[in-house]
Amino acid sequence: MKYNPVTKEILDELKSILGEKNVFADEEKMEAYSHDETDAKVYGHMPEVVVTPVSTEQVAEVVKLANREMIPVTPRGAGSGLSGGAIPIYGGILLSVEKMNKVVELDYANMLFVAESGIITNEVNELVKEKGLFFAGYPMSLETCYLGGNIAENAGGGKAIKYGVTGRHIMGVELVTPTGEIVELGGKLAKDVTGYDLKQLIVGSEGTLGIVTKATVKLTGLPTAKSNLLVLFKTPKDAIDVVPEIMAGGLIPTGIEFMDRLSVQTACEYLNETLPYEDCGAMLLIEMDGTDQDEVELDAEKIGDMCMENRAIEVYVADNYTTQERIWSVRRNIAEAFKVTSPVQVIEDIVVPISAIPDLIPELEKISKKYDVQVPCYGHAGDGNIHAHLVKNPDSTMEHWHEIEPKALRELYAATNKLGGKISGEHGIGLKRKVYMKELISPVELELMKAIKRAWDPNNIMNPGKIFDLEDR
Amino acid sequence: MKYNPVTKEILDELKSILGEKNVFADEEKMEAYSHDETDAKVYGHMPEVVVTPVSTEQVAEVVKLANREMIPVTPRGAGSGLSGGAIPIYGGILLSVEKMNKVVELDYANMLFVAESGIITNEVNELVKEKGLFFAGYPMSLETCYLGGNIAENAGGGKAIKYGVTGRHIMGVELVTPTGEIVELGGKLAKDVTGYDLKQLIVGSEGTLGIVTKATVKLTGLPTAKSNLLVLFKTPKDAIDVVPEIMAGGLIPTGIEFMDRLSVQTACEYLNETLPYEDCGAMLLIEMDGTDQDEVELDAEKIGDMCMENRAIEVYVADNYTTQERIWSVRRNIAEAFKVTSPVQVIEDIVVPISAIPDLIPELEKISKKYDVQVPCYGHAGDGNIHAHLVKNPDSTMEHWHEIEPKALRELYAATNKLGGKISGEHGIGLKRKVYMKELISPVELELMKAIKRAWDPNNIMNPGKIFDLEDR
Repeated sequence: MKYNPVTKEILDELKSILGEKNVFADEEKMEAYSHDETDAKVYGHMPEVVVTPVSTEQVAEVVKLANREMIPVTPRGAGSGLSGGAIPIYGGILLSVEKMNKVVELDYANMLFVAESGIITNEVNELVKEKGLFFAGYPMSLETCYLGGNIAENAGGGKAIKYGVTGRHIMGVELVTPTGEIVELGGKLAKDVTGYDLKQLIVGSEGTLGIVTKATVKLTGLPTAKSNLLVLFKTPKDAIDVVPEIMAGGLIPTGIEFMDRLSVQTACEYLNETLPYEDCGAMLLIEMDGTDQDEVELDAEKIGDMCMENRAIEVYVADNYTTQERIWSVRRNIAEAFKVTSPVQVIEDIVVPISAIPDLIPELEKISKKYDVQVPCYGHAGDGNIHAHLVKNPDSTMEHWHEIEPKALRELYAATNKLGGKISGEHGIGLKRKVYMKELISPVELELMKAIKRAWDPNNIMNPGKIFDLEDR
Repeated sequence: MKYNPVTKEILDELKSILGEKNVFADEEKMEAYSHDETDAKVYGHMPEVVVTPVSTEQVAEVVKLANREMIPVTPRGAGSGLSGGAIPIYGGILLSVEKMNKVVELDYANMLFVAESGIITNEVNELVKEKGLFFAGYPMSLETCYLGGNIAENAGGGKAIKYGVTGRHIMGVELVTPTGEIVELGGKLAKDVTGYDLKQLIVGSEGTLGIVTKATVKLTGLPTAKSNLLVLFKTPKDAIDVVPEIMAGGLIPTGIEFMDRLSVQTACEYLNETLPYEDCGAMLLIEMDGTDQDEVELDAEKIGDMCMENRAIEVYVADNYTTQERIWSVRRNIAEAFKVTSPVQVIEDIVVPISAIPDLIPELEKISKKYDVQVPCYGHAGDGNIHAHLVKNPDSTMEHWHEIEPKALRELYAATNKLGGKISGEHGIGLKRKVYMKELISPVELELMKAIKRAWDPNNIMNPGKIFDLEDR
């Protein structure tokens, strides 16, 4: 498939659809739209034109034009992605939803929020918190990311055990299809089995099946009480073994975060913090929330006891804001800390069955030794979703790094696959992981995905070359 | 599209695939497979042959044969469906999963259960309860229905507010595709964004996109404490208005069931029960659960207070098993009670935004008057999912009933649609509702669904004529 270039005539037509100020093609302004949070040198690509529509109708008109002229369209949210999903690898039209950020409706009676997809996720929470509500599906990057990007990636965060990931909270989307039709999927309904659940197919489809222009988001009662436990274990296996015990106990923590010793140590040194990591091989950070401080603390105590009965060395309770912040700060700063050790790294988000996490650790150690990279391991133990970074040895050359990175990644993904895991739990496949996905996913499943893509996007103009290539067209 | 008949040669080939005892074509034995819980006279249809495979490989071989010979295949679970989804309307092969009921694995470390799709849902719960676990996505009919049917319909139940419906608990499926390929979708992973979420597309697809042969089900800690509130209100609107207040309070009830006066009264008379319905227009039945009886009762008390601050007439607390059973028995027996009044009725499961339930009531009254049918209204208020029955006046003729039923249904669905609702919240579209769905869903959405069906099932042999017709093929 050959795409056509964006000619002077097409630029003029785009301007007549969107207005002069919503269309630009100068290199300097477009540079920011040529990459996301992945390495720009490896994955970046310039668009031919950037458009910033202000309405769903404009989005639909742009997509219709793109079909008529065979020009690829790459939708973009905040550009905070970690898999290259918003990079216009075939040039063409980069469609940013940055100006589509209006609140459509605060429907408190139904505990719903309706907004355009370019709204910053945290704004949703700010707007509804006075009513004691929040959007419980938000990811860690909520202060910069857009709601539309959360939906495209089915983003997850540290509260997923109790509240689920983004998809659970998306009740409806307004979508511009790959052929430029406008359609409402889902709505304000808590249950709906009226035909296929297309809304949930859109969630996590990385902009390849259409552009989400509006979303109806479920709101949840904001917890008013919180308690955190920091639990020390001798080995990663001891730490992980307790997770199903906790989950089966009937108490549902907000999050169970796992940190290996290397992660804790590096973050502590970076923050000049003094968590007691010396004698332990791994830690769990367990958060409980609720509406009654006494109840929450009682529940946290029960979970602490469970940990002690299951080979924990020590349980520290953090039931005030300051102590909680200290602990979470360590967890949040692990990535930052490794950036100081070596600014060159890849952030992975592999996911395995919870019980397989201990078996993953020796595999990471093998990769670490073989390629001379550090591989800290931390993440959402309650979900089996582990952030294994590959951190470049600062003494090695960039040439060496570019040579070993794909090999080390391939081994990491193969090890994950062998343990019944998948290569992405929350960041998506995008551009960065599509070659690996193809190697690891069953050909039948891949073909089922491609069949949907072909059926919905016959010209393959909607974010082409992401997740997979339609090689045969 | 013309299907071919099941010839003697094809019967022989089926027997060679499945063995003699798993293939039968005598009318008497096949009769039970010609209908589900919908009216057999209206919707029933005989298959040409019934097959009862015992392995996924056998299912795949049957589907491959069906493609080669252009014979429709209708998958069937327990036959307890309420929308005609398992009825072989074009004859052909009826494929029952009744012999595929083996437990594959109890994976307690990951809190997962793997079984073939023909297992009775309640068996899952029985097998895992000694470990303090349960499958939280089960529907009300769990003692007869199959796990595979729950998945096909994305069944819901009375615990959906807190625990969600079936789909939330299905982590993986083994699927025989419409062309007879075997594929694993999902797995033992709590999070997974490795390509499109095909597993969730299968959930609720009513057997039109393939046959689920195995499923991996998430288990949840079994609550050990419970408290129920029976709350009386003057009007349905008063009762419904309190629902978002409760939900926003941060406490998440297991269920908030709504019953109008007609429903309560009819069930009470049927059971010789004495709930205090005289002075009230509607009731809410609110269930809380947890792991600590004191905490649960405290939470229930808070919700009771909230109700009293929001125009409740009276709150009755049922914190012991006997009282709880009395109340729930009324709720569960509403359908049964109306069957005694008149055995002829249609059970609907329309769903509207929660705040729209009060506006639905006068619409139901209009339909009741216009067509001289009783329309009791009850159901899952916390989900907006209402069971509005249309109950035939016992004094009218069956001819009259058959004439008015589709008209009354059409008006009910139109009213639902006008309120932002959909025609099915948990029972599915199947055969019974496809003509109505076509009238109410957007043509763009319908076309997107059909595009997937055509792409995955090019010969249209997998449960054809359900949800929609592919008229143009």
